[in-house]
Amino acid sequence: MPGSTSNGTRDLSGTMNFCSQCGATVSRRIPDGDNLPRWVCDSCGTIHYENPKLVVGCIAEWEDRILLCKRAIEPRLGYWTVPAGFMENGETTAQGAARETLEEANARVDISGLYAVYNIPHINQVYMLFRARLVDLDFSPGTETLETRLVTEAEIPWDELAFMTVRNTLHHYFADRARGLYRFHMGTIEPMGRATSHVEHD
Amino acid sequence: MPGSTSNGTRDLSGTMNFCSQCGATVSRRIPDGDNLPRWVCDSCGTIHYENPKLVVGCIAEWEDRILLCKRAIEPRLGYWTVPAGFMENGETTAQGAARETLEEANARVDISGLYAVYNIPHINQVYMLFRARLVDLDFSPGTETLETRLVTEAEIPWDELAFMTVRNTLHHYFADRARGLYRFHMGTIEPMGRATSHVEHD
Repeated sequence: MPGSTSNGTRDLSGTMNFCSQCGATVSRRIPDGDNLPRWVCDSCGTIHYENPKLVVGCIAEWEDRILLCKRAIEPRLGYWTVPAGFMENGETTAQGAARETLEEANARVDISGLYAVYNIPHINQVYMLFRARLVDLDFSPGTETLETRLVTEAEIPWDELAFMTVRNTLHHYFADRARGLYRFHMGTIEPMGRATSHVEHD
Repeated sequence: MPGSTSNGTRDLSGTMNFCSQCGATVSRRIPDGDNLPRWVCDSCGTIHYENPKLVVGCIAEWEDRILLCKRAIEPRLGYWTVPAGFMENGETTAQGAARETLEEANARVDISGLYAVYNIPHINQVYMLFRARLVDLDFSPGTETLETRLVTEAEIPWDELAFMTVRNTLHHYFADRARGLYRFHMGTIEPMGRATSHVEHD
C-alpha cells in the first residue's frame, strides 16, 4: 500500500500550514526550552514534532537464493528490491518486516534476526533489515510489485537495484555468506549515493 | 527539551481534527489501495500517515560505572534513566544517542556500538540503545535532569528506574559484563510491564 512504501511517495519535506488539532495557522519557530525549530500553532500552541521514520524489511532466504521484488510503484519503478516498507504503529520491527514481505510478495517468513541498520539522515529514514527464512515457495507479486523472483548471488541484478540500502545490505550479505559468518552491520547512506558502513558485531 | 523526551509528554493518541496542508476537516478511513485506517483530508485528500518513533540513548561507561540521570520532567519525574530521547530528523541513530547524552547530562561520549533494540508496540516506540564511553568526567544535569551520577552495578537503584527498557537493558548489560561478553539484545515490552527478550548475536 502507498503508506508503507520504502523511500515512498509521501511528502518528506516537512511543510505544514495548519494545526491538525485546532485548524489555526502554524509558524516555524523554536519553542521555549527547545533548541530546534518546530511547527508551532499560532492559536493553541501545540508543537508538531517531526521525527525519522523506520523502514523494515527482509532478506528472505530459500536454500542459496533470496527473494527479490520488482517495484510496481515510484520511486524506482521497475527496479529490484528486497521486500521492505514503512513500519506501522502497533507492531514490532520484526512483525513489520514480515508484514511487508507478505504484502509485497505474498510470502510468509520466519524471522531469523536483525542483520543491518542503515541511517539515511538526509531523508529522515532508518532502515532495519532482518534475515528471514521463507516458509514455503508459495509467493507471488503483491499490488506494489511487478514480479517476484528467487535469485542466487550470480543472478542479483546489481545495476537494477532500487536503493543504496539494498545494494549495501546484499553486498555484505553475500560476503558474510562466503565467509560462513553473518555479522550485524550498521552504516549511513549519504546524499549522492555515498555510503559508509562498518561491522558492529562479529 | 520537551520534544526529545523518551516516553515523553507529546500526544501519542494519534487524534487529528484538521488537515495540516489545507486546514479542512479530516476523517478516519481506509484509503483506496491501503488496508489500514488513516486520517484523510475531506477536501484535498492528503493522507496523514502516523508511524512509530525511535528513541535513542546510551549506556555511557567510565571504568566499572555507568551514567544515570534522575528525571526532572514527567513522565516518571524523579526516577532514574540512562540518557535517551526521541531521534530528530537529519541525524543518525548514534548521533542522536550522543546528542541526548549531551543534552541530559552535559556529557560527551564515544559511541562503541548498538547494544539493544526494544519494541514497545503499544506506545508506538522503538528504542535503540548504544554502548558508549564517557570522554571525561565533566558532566552535570541538563535542563531535563535533576541529578547525574556515575554508579557501579551495586549502586543501581533498581526500584527507582524510570522505564522497563532501562531495567531490561541494564539487567542484560551487567549479566553480559559478568560473562565477559557483550551481546546484542532485541526484545519487546508488552503492556503491564511484561517483557520478552532474546539475544540476537553472540
